[in-house]
Amino acid sequence: MIENPPTPGSALWVYAHPRRGSFNDLLFQAGTEALSATRDVATSDLYAQGFDPVLSTRDLGDLADTPGNIAEQVGEAFSAGRLPDDVRAEQAKLAAAELLVIQFPLWWYGPPAILKGWLDRVLTAGFAYGDMDPELGVPRRYGDGGLTGRKALVVVTAGEDERTIGPRGISGDIDALLFPLTHGTLWYTGIETLDLHVVTDADTLDASAVDRETERLRSRIAGLSTENVHPYRRLRDGDYQGTRALRDDLAPGRTDLGIHRVQPG
Amino acid sequence: MIENPPTPGSALWVYAHPRRGSFNDLLFQAGTEALSATRDVATSDLYAQGFDPVLSTRDLGDLADTPGNIAEQVGEAFSAGRLPDDVRAEQAKLAAAELLVIQFPLWWYGPPAILKGWLDRVLTAGFAYGDMDPELGVPRRYGDGGLTGRKALVVVTAGEDERTIGPRGISGDIDALLFPLTHGTLWYTGIETLDLHVVTDADTLDASAVDRETERLRSRIAGLSTENVHPYRRLRDGDYQGTRALRDDLAPGRTDLGIHRVQPG
Repeated sequence: MIENPPTPGSALWVYAHPRRGSFNDLLFQAGTEALSATRDVATSDLYAQGFDPVLSTRDLGDLADTPGNIAEQVGEAFSAGRLPDDVRAEQAKLAAAELLVIQFPLWWYGPPAILKGWLDRVLTAGFAYGDMDPELGVPRRYGDGGLTGRKALVVVTAGEDERTIGPRGISGDIDALLFPLTHGTLWYTGIETLDLHVVTDADTLDASAVDRETERLRSRIAGLSTENVHPYRRLRDGDYQGTRALRDDLAPGRTDLGIHRVQPG
Repeated sequence: MIENPPTPGSALWVYAHPRRGSFNDLLFQAGTEALSATRDVATSDLYAQGFDPVLSTRDLGDLADTPGNIAEQVGEAFSAGRLPDDVRAEQAKLAAAELLVIQFPLWWYGPPAILKGWLDRVLTAGFAYGDMDPELGVPRRYGDGGLTGRKALVVVTAGEDERTIGPRGISGDIDALLFPLTHGTLWYTGIETLDLHVVTDADTLDASAVDRETERLRSRIAGLSTENVHPYRRLRDGDYQGTRALRDDLAPGRTDLGIHRVQPG
């Protein structure tokens, strides 16, 4: 069984914005400072690190030229201790963290490529998922992966206003837009995401709005440990027909992504 | 007004998979060959090109160190003809294409980073969006951007089966998972997406299944010109309250992403 026991009181803040002195940078500085009051905070400032987001056969070590499934081969490279140094360093930080913060500007309604590639390269089989569930006979996933027991806070800045990325907003609800991250990625590996921390109208904030938002993030972080999570359903709790589709009697008739919450909104 | 008149009969196939000889590579070879029967096909084989997916201040030319909004500054760099050569080359291919094909394996329920970054860097303001709508007083977008009049085919391979990525599937419906691409990105700039071309169970296909899927793609492509589109709603058609949320009388009570189709499913 995959074991990645976190270090009590530790956190990792993953940050993806290209510019020093930007509004995102202010949030990053304020947020990591606030979090440091109660936790040991490691950071992955992806642009500052020059992180390479492209998962390629270079990550496969001596399997680079062997035909096969890339995701499985990355898992083998992990098990053999042959992943590249930059990936291993990120895995070590993530394995140690009880709390993960992921901060980014919304680009084309998703994470910037440098962050998407951090997920692609770091969350390998063998590390973040891949164990078989002995009862279900399928890989442990959705609430039960290699990073189980951790919590995540997603901090996202959007140029649009609240209605535009709200439940019937033209751009789609932000919870649905980020479902591939919060559910398909984090929850898949066992990480529970707290309610999103969204800053809307982020391109047009004046100085006082910047102060207000910086303070709102500080105060959110100060209260994190007492926040409730609105969890997604665990695969192994029996809410799905076998391993695939939600049972007909749960959130009947609905097909929105909210059905995957234990308490659909 | 942004004008990117396509060249009649031309297509661009954007492809993002790291391995020669993979199943995706077979689909790429078969698909581009089939499409070449009726169109002039340019390709962007992102791994082969070593495409850099990281949008950074390097893309801003002499604005690299000027404080401001990155997306706006990229638009200024576009207008000044100062975007990097690799971005300009991709924009030229895209501007010429009537039909865009985007092919990728589903990684963490979205496009691989190298493809996300192609969107981040290539679809700049001034090129793909940014004009003001004179009547609505907002930027032209959602059905009305710089790439209006084009169609796209999204070809995606997934390791999971049809139910798992179906309407109530545990991983979320593939149409919802890819909404940020088909609606938030392509439709935003004016490109209509044909029904997704999804290959499920893609990691476990035997030789005959590979042949069947290759043939299915060929035959899909042969019939593309007569396919119906299930279009998203245009912002300027009045379905939204002002520019933000869907009118209460349309798809009443629903909050799934399907409400943004002209004919919600």
